[in-house]
Amino acid sequence: MGAVTSSGTAVERAPKQDRSRATRRRLLEAAVSCLAERGWSGSTVSVVAERAGVSRGAAQHHFPTREDLFTAAVEYVAEERSTALRALRPRGRTEVVAALVDLYTGPLFRAALHLWVAASNEPQLGGRVTELEARVGRETHRIAVELLSADESHPGVRETVQGLLDMARGLGLANLLTDDGPRRERVVAQWAAILDGALG
Amino acid sequence: MGAVTSSGTAVERAPKQDRSRATRRRLLEAAVSCLAERGWSGSTVSVVAERAGVSRGAAQHHFPTREDLFTAAVEYVAEERSTALRALRPRGRTEVVAALVDLYTGPLFRAALHLWVAASNEPQLGGRVTELEARVGRETHRIAVELLSADESHPGVRETVQGLLDMARGLGLANLLTDDGPRRERVVAQWAAILDGALG
Repeated sequence: MGAVTSSGTAVERAPKQDRSRATRRRLLEAAVSCLAERGWSGSTVSVVAERAGVSRGAAQHHFPTREDLFTAAVEYVAEERSTALRALRPRGRTEVVAALVDLYTGPLFRAALHLWVAASNEPQLGGRVTELEARVGRETHRIAVELLSADESHPGVRETVQGLLDMARGLGLANLLTDDGPRRERVVAQWAAILDGALG
Repeated sequence: MGAVTSSGTAVERAPKQDRSRATRRRLLEAAVSCLAERGWSGSTVSVVAERAGVSRGAAQHHFPTREDLFTAAVEYVAEERSTALRALRPRGRTEVVAALVDLYTGPLFRAALHLWVAASNEPQLGGRVTELEARVGRETHRIAVELLSADESHPGVRETVQGLLDMARGLGLANLLTDDGPRRERVVAQWAAILDGALG
């Protein structure tokens, strides 16, 4: 009897945990798209809960505050993007540069940008976003170094990669109000060639 | 008599125009610092009028709508910066790169960023900011080409300069939440050297 009960509980627990994880994921994805489309001022836990088809109570069980929800959302999507980037098998540096730049032109960058800008005026958000940004930034830098086969023991290589990621961020910003795709493609091709020379 | 009256009026008109121009300038400068410090949601014509020590009525005489005031403010400060940049006599490309990057790390960039991000979610602002951004961007590009002695008739040079300005914009973004000065200085030094090689 004891074994049956214990086994039954374990079986029930697993789907419950799966459901909870699925709810959490739905909330995080809804939070990112909400932030990207409506900005910080239009993004609340209630709006996201409704978008995700989750009750407000369940949403608050997962994320007690608005800051919890949106910083977790940007981190979650950033991790998904990092995993996808690591799985990439690019055929050359131009492809790597294009893939890195792509990180900054989608809804994740748009969402993160809204969060950064809001954090610059809201102290309760500032500390958390700064910490998140540093963590995500370090991870992106590591992936970039790896994909570019850059040897950071050489002087200047670290700063070369950093500047490339700054350029990618700037290209993301240029894409905020208009579709900057055709211009961006030419800039990426040119700088990939320059970078190839600089990295040797 | 006629001559005296007419001459008197002209004399009176000049200081009145001067006062009006000074009021306008005070409003524009107050609007930029307000936008930089409080963001779009905290920036209204009333708040700016008070900051500038101008009556709300006088402010609305100069700028009938909130959109008028803030787009004019970002444009005004961008023009001031362009004039200052054109007057620069840099001693080499590293100094030029540093001066261009400086454009994106001060209160003007912070104000413009708030305006861009707000414009991405507010249709009545979007069109005007897109047009303003294109105008300011073209002007900055022209100045960069001139200061860098870049010859755009060579293939790739145009995109090289564009990528540099994108990097400058990305460096501005990285400076939003923390003082990124020391890292930025190293990136600027490295990229100025790369650029020097690329531009020949």
